[in-house]
Amino acid sequence: MYENFWKQKGEETTVVTSSWQHISYFSDIKNVCWFLEPALMSAIMRLHKVVGNAVTEGRHIVVGTGSSQLYQAALYALSPHNASEPMNVVSAAPFYSSYPLMTDYLKSGLHKWAGDANEFNKQEPYIELVTSPNNPDGSTRQDVVKGDKGILIHDLAYYWPQYTPIVSPADYDIMLFTVSKSTGHAGTRIGWALVKDREIARKMTTFIEINTIGVSKDSQIRAAKILQAISNSCDHANQKDVETFFDYSYKLMAERWKELREAVNKTELFSLPDFPLETCAFSSRTFGQLPAFAWLKCEGNVDDCEEFLRKHKILTRGGKHFGASMKYVRVSMLSREKEFKLLTQRLPAIVS
Amino acid sequence: MYENFWKQKGEETTVVTSSWQHISYFSDIKNVCWFLEPALMSAIMRLHKVVGNAVTEGRHIVVGTGSSQLYQAALYALSPHNASEPMNVVSAAPFYSSYPLMTDYLKSGLHKWAGDANEFNKQEPYIELVTSPNNPDGSTRQDVVKGDKGILIHDLAYYWPQYTPIVSPADYDIMLFTVSKSTGHAGTRIGWALVKDREIARKMTTFIEINTIGVSKDSQIRAAKILQAISNSCDHANQKDVETFFDYSYKLMAERWKELREAVNKTELFSLPDFPLETCAFSSRTFGQLPAFAWLKCEGNVDDCEEFLRKHKILTRGGKHFGASMKYVRVSMLSREKEFKLLTQRLPAIVS
Repeated sequence: MYENFWKQKGEETTVVTSSWQHISYFSDIKNVCWFLEPALMSAIMRLHKVVGNAVTEGRHIVVGTGSSQLYQAALYALSPHNASEPMNVVSAAPFYSSYPLMTDYLKSGLHKWAGDANEFNKQEPYIELVTSPNNPDGSTRQDVVKGDKGILIHDLAYYWPQYTPIVSPADYDIMLFTVSKSTGHAGTRIGWALVKDREIARKMTTFIEINTIGVSKDSQIRAAKILQAISNSCDHANQKDVETFFDYSYKLMAERWKELREAVNKTELFSLPDFPLETCAFSSRTFGQLPAFAWLKCEGNVDDCEEFLRKHKILTRGGKHFGASMKYVRVSMLSREKEFKLLTQRLPAIVS
Repeated sequence: MYENFWKQKGEETTVVTSSWQHISYFSDIKNVCWFLEPALMSAIMRLHKVVGNAVTEGRHIVVGTGSSQLYQAALYALSPHNASEPMNVVSAAPFYSSYPLMTDYLKSGLHKWAGDANEFNKQEPYIELVTSPNNPDGSTRQDVVKGDKGILIHDLAYYWPQYTPIVSPADYDIMLFTVSKSTGHAGTRIGWALVKDREIARKMTTFIEINTIGVSKDSQIRAAKILQAISNSCDHANQKDVETFFDYSYKLMAERWKELREAVNKTELFSLPDFPLETCAFSSRTFGQLPAFAWLKCEGNVDDCEEFLRKHKILTRGGKHFGASMKYVRVSMLSREKEFKLLTQRLPAIVS
């Protein structure tokens, strides 16, 4: 969706790699995460400082092949390896549909998916995954389990100013980010974790070492260049002719949400969540969330919203995948322009 | 080790990537492996044809973040998901020390490491990993378990003409390769599997989808360019001024093995494996294996060869990591020139 922005960018973000460069497995053997490229580390720290969305001081950075790998690395690092029972992993419904899958696909003896955090009441250790803004419904989240045996992982993939007002720098023990959601470069498969505890960062590094022996250097170098270009544009934002990436992407998201809400309001069949207005400390704009996904509800008698929409040629992902009611579906707001237009045309044309 | 070769190469192998390219998760949605870049697929098929080391006809290609990820993907694809017991995974000792680790690090209920294939005699299903040439000892391998419930994975990372005579195109059900060993570009983290059965290729793809949602496109594009450059140089090998990559790397390996054998022969403390001479169908040269690792044995009374060498400032990996006797160590033959020289100086200087 952000492709047109990047097409305006010239040499500043072009990467040139000769065949003799970045050959080795190693990037910085003195770092806890020995396969993290120093250029990427600098770019990540600078961007968080510029945007003000996360504290990086006193944090170790672990790079991953997307934030999926980092989620699995965090589970590996946080689960005891000598326990008789696997560690419980929970998240408040509706939750990202891949979490149960990533937790359980290898039938691990280290951890197991234990479902909706709102319903977890065992007197056992647990890991609670807090996704904020949340995928699929865009809401701002806090941990919900009222236990004293919990460890938290914060998935902050969408905590960027095109999706949500940045109210303060996030300051948690383990925070996950990814370029696929921040800049749109999903194909690079680069994510990163900010980790307070050195030992946890070390164990996460060990997981990635066993899983893939590090992370593509080519993509790390490219991601570094793209993140630096974004920081540069923010630094020069006072120059009239420079539109920052976050200006561009915010306007795009705001426009799409306006169009979607207009389309939905033309019928009585559907509803969308409402979000409170807040002021973004980064952009100084006051706005409600503009999530990367719309959590659409079928009002009235429709019980299976996914099936209902499919009949009207709208492909979505049903609520049951996210631990929620089938009256809900998740709709992508980051699709290509043509697809998104079709969505806003087809929705109001539906007659129940 | 191959860095100097790549430094001679100019623009042919240089990759230029603009920020708007390769943004999406998807590469070819019609392919079983939907995240495989078509350019990499062509480059892989061409190189195998040029070298004659593997059959690609009727095979599906699955790309991975190094061959480690593909090994884990193959275990996931080959292990039944509803069995009461995890699948046995074996390999003949000495075996690559990471196999037990990669099989068991998540305490998976799907598969478990069952040790040396030579000693496996359970009447249960098993996966046998056949590494040929073998890591750590360089030997040519066949499967050894005499059972009828076995499935084979062939790890052919070192089946390239700088390490071993290519006698015929490998023609197995699941074959693993990696650029880190074929071209030396470990930092790209690109491996590939040639898979006969479509359903197994699909399940391997599912594993990588859950594990890392695909594989870095930037590295795939770069690997494609490097593999094509190697094929090009082989096609033009009749031109006098062109030294192919495999000529260069073969000469380097042959020279290093000559130096190492000379160093070892100066003392009676150590021995190295001998390899039979064979004629390489690719290069027409007749030679014995030139493995990427030397499997060095301490003769005489030394029981812990790793410890013994460490005292003499030579860092190696002891036999026990590979399921073998501690009288053996694995020594890298792919180190930097300076390190390798030190090895060949220090070995003969040791007095027991």
